Amino acid sequence: METFTTVSEMKAWASAERSLGKSLGFVPTMGYLHDGHLTLINAARRENDRVVTSIFVNPTQFGANEDLSTYPRDPVNDAAKCAKSGVDALFIPEAAEIYGPRHQTYVEPGRISETLCGRSRPGHFRGVATVVLKLFNIVNPANAYFGAKDYQQLQVIVSMVRDLNVPVRIVSCPTVREPDGLAMSSRNSYLTPDERRQAVCLYEALGKARELFDQGVTCGLTYVDVMRDRIKLEPDAEPDYVSLVDPDTLGDIEEVSDRCLAVMAVRIGKTRLIDNMLFER
Amino acid sequence: METFTTVSEMKAWASAERSLGKSLGFVPTMGYLHDGHLTLINAARRENDRVVTSIFVNPTQFGANEDLSTYPRDPVNDAAKCAKSGVDALFIPEAAEIYGPRHQTYVEPGRISETLCGRSRPGHFRGVATVVLKLFNIVNPANAYFGAKDYQQLQVIVSMVRDLNVPVRIVSCPTVREPDGLAMSSRNSYLTPDERRQAVCLYEALGKARELFDQGVTCGLTYVDVMRDRIKLEPDAEPDYVSLVDPDTLGDIEEVSDRCLAVMAVRIGKTRLIDNMLFER
Repeated sequence: METFTTVSEMKAWASAERSLGKSLGFVPTMGYLHDGHLTLINAARRENDRVVTSIFVNPTQFGANEDLSTYPRDPVNDAAKCAKSGVDALFIPEAAEIYGPRHQTYVEPGRISETLCGRSRPGHFRGVATVVLKLFNIVNPANAYFGAKDYQQLQVIVSMVRDLNVPVRIVSCPTVREPDGLAMSSRNSYLTPDERRQAVCLYEALGKARELFDQGVTCGLTYVDVMRDRIKLEPDAEPDYVSLVDPDTLGDIEEVSDRCLAVMAVRIGKTRLIDNMLFER
Repeated sequence: METFTTVSEMKAWASAERSLGKSLGFVPTMGYLHDGHLTLINAARRENDRVVTSIFVNPTQFGANEDLSTYPRDPVNDAAKCAKSGVDALFIPEAAEIYGPRHQTYVEPGRISETLCGRSRPGHFRGVATVVLKLFNIVNPANAYFGAKDYQQLQVIVSMVRDLNVPVRIVSCPTVREPDGLAMSSRNSYLTPDERRQAVCLYEALGKARELFDQGVTCGLTYVDVMRDRIKLEPDAEPDYVSLVDPDTLGDIEEVSDRCLAVMAVRIGKTRLIDNMLFER
């Protein structure tokens, strides 16, 4: 596995591989890799001649009071996992390599970014869209892989690719879960053992929404109430948002028909976790 | 010359040419082509195997009270000029082909777009940056050509390419002028004969600034006063802005040293014209 820390090295390698006719699959990450990331890498492995993974804790997607400085990092282990998973090139730049001193251009994702996490984290998706477009331009992959756990992020990127004619195919991979249902996330490492037990409430709340959908319940507010009630059972759980939305626009659904997304952000102690589940008939 | 009206046709042609190892030069325009545009096409012709020109009057760069609906259009003559100038592919899409009903992602250019024309035309450079990035992604050229008359636009695009790692080389071509010095612009066609005579005041004001620079005058305000005085001589000329700025940041210069840009927007009757001149020692 090649490891690159500069844009010019990464571009040169990717360009040389493309010249040889090799298709590139790209998995952008913030590192501290778990089985969710490895699922993305495996999907990229199956569908492309070469796999590029990036590890970059992107400062522009963190708010002033968020966890940029404490975000978990383990580059040595991450590199070992990438090598073992068949990654061909690992791109692991410093922040100054990605954002020059005169950086001022951003990608603004619009409506899709204004609800849910975008409401609690102003500027977050602007930072995500900007860094993803930059990484796409550096790597120039045929396919890029994103986890469905970050559903709104995925939709922001799908919108960006459509609206800006970005020549990259976006592939969504299903959320990978712990045995008790908790969605895998690098931020799970923040949880104390007691918080970790309580954190299952997100998955269980989504499961209760699924039961309502299977029963044919049509009132969107009922779903939200039932999910909130499950979360409230945990002493250290505080919902940021709990919603039932249209999977394409992310607008609230009042009357459920044949397709909807239950989606939530919940603080467990100081740790903010997100999860979602798509229901379709 | 090939003519394409859809994104998919344009992409397919450009992609096929690149596969054959042909380098692409791209000249994005809003049509109503004049010798300034043809200079860009000629430069592209010299430096690339294939030349692509686009004609698209981009709605997102016009404000609500601006001249989108009256902007001069002459696609038949434009196509003839392109063919005669050796353009290989002309891309001339409708607005709905470029902006789908769900379009919501924009490129925000930052500081460089907030002064000068950006102050009088809020959102203008957001529209410019967005459509230029879209066209770059559709055509995927090696080189793209822009006129120095639209100096701030050029700087916005240079910043965007740098900040978003866009793999396109930006080439600036000198402003082409009428015999009396008026910078060529499609909007010159709006001028009545009397206004056309008055319009030379932009070029002459810039010439007076050049004299000050050649004399070693260091006070930025003196330049602005002298330029404004020349413009005031014309009864139908109304300055929008008249400035002496740093050519890189576009910030006002108080103390002139060895490099500065005189830049202005002036209304002649109802027609807003822009011009600039770079002074360097």
